[in-house]
Amino acid sequence: MKLHFVIAEAALELIPESLWRDPSVRSDEKRREMEPSQILLDRSVHHSAMLKLKDGFRRGRPDLVHLTLLSATSTPLHQEGQAKVYIHTIGDVVLEFGEGTRPPKSYARFRNLMEKMLVERPESGLVSVRESTLPQLLKSIGTDHSTGLSVQGAPVRLEALADDLVKRKNPAVVVGGFPRGHFLPADLKAFDDLARIDDKSLDAHVVTARVIYEVEKASARQLAKGVPGSSSH
Amino acid sequence: MKLHFVIAEAALELIPESLWRDPSVRSDEKRREMEPSQILLDRSVHHSAMLKLKDGFRRGRPDLVHLTLLSATSTPLHQEGQAKVYIHTIGDVVLEFGEGTRPPKSYARFRNLMEKMLVERPESGLVSVRESTLPQLLKSIGTDHSTGLSVQGAPVRLEALADDLVKRKNPAVVVGGFPRGHFLPADLKAFDDLARIDDKSLDAHVVTARVIYEVEKASARQLAKGVPGSSSH
Repeated sequence: MKLHFVIAEAALELIPESLWRDPSVRSDEKRREMEPSQILLDRSVHHSAMLKLKDGFRRGRPDLVHLTLLSATSTPLHQEGQAKVYIHTIGDVVLEFGEGTRPPKSYARFRNLMEKMLVERPESGLVSVRESTLPQLLKSIGTDHSTGLSVQGAPVRLEALADDLVKRKNPAVVVGGFPRGHFLPADLKAFDDLARIDDKSLDAHVVTARVIYEVEKASARQLAKGVPGSSSH
Repeated sequence: MKLHFVIAEAALELIPESLWRDPSVRSDEKRREMEPSQILLDRSVHHSAMLKLKDGFRRGRPDLVHLTLLSATSTPLHQEGQAKVYIHTIGDVVLEFGEGTRPPKSYARFRNLMEKMLVERPESGLVSVRESTLPQLLKSIGTDHSTGLSVQGAPVRLEALADDLVKRKNPAVVVGGFPRGHFLPADLKAFDDLARIDDKSLDAHVVTARVIYEVEKASARQLAKGVPGSSSH
């Protein structure tokens, strides 16, 4: 089993051109000595500019994306190459993280890295970047089963979900990388299942930590039992 | 059961006076238009100054403390008032977070809040601050049992540890808030148990997410069974 873990519709993007002339963007441009086209949109800095965006409530939260990414990449599952992590952004750009990559824990360094990646769009390396919708990404992964996680999904026990995932070869799990709202209809259609793992609404980084931990435990159970689909088969 | 969750010897402090004249500190002082005595020590900004500190490898990582704090406070256990979270810093200052408090997810906002708290040291509010060693903190909590988590500890199954915790009234769990190394001897002596929950060395934020999740599950199991010590007793 290799888990493909996707942070989808993530609130990560460079400042859109329509906001370049806003005072909050202009002063950030001066402070950082960078072009606005090369700066990450960030609600904690560009809040007043973002009021002009129609879907602004779903955008400009690189801090949430950072937390969620680290909750996935800091785990033994990822470090040992049993999970592959992707960020699919709200602008349909996919950042794919190489096996075992450790993204920076410092937010400023993460921000600088993401800006560089979104500007330069390298086709290979520790982080590779391409244009892709979420359905296109799931297709290109060649996943045999995809599960979206959402409060709109059917309630499942996370242990049972994890037991199901580890029986597959290339399962994909998708969490929303946005602060509020739900997956867009076009993306919902791409999932084989939509599951809800708690009766409360949980932050994406909490969901991520729990899913990956349960997959590690299910993987260990499977190995102990020696059932079909374990890594020895 | 109320879980007292402590991030201990945390790499969180204001810039020490011995570094105020260093060029990396001076330029940060200008950039932020603040006194160095009011700025958090941060390796990603003050690296060259920190080379002068003898125990610098354990200090100046507010990013790790932030991640670990959010892994604790974003959980249902904390949000529902069943966990109380404390940061004990390497300088023996304790920051106590009020029930259900949601610290900022943006690192810059977290940094600003911590600077304000460490300078002003409010005695009450959403975050209260006092001078205290770790043994003094554990004593003041009135905990009936404290468990330090460390790769130096005795291997335990995390589920079993959680089952044990939820049977108690005021258990304390302590994770290290430093990037490398181990608990100091004086703090080790204060623990009733020292436990190791994985054969790998895990980041503090990963340990935190897993411990709190397992405590939630153990709490639900206990409630389902109706055994002594459940919240109905």
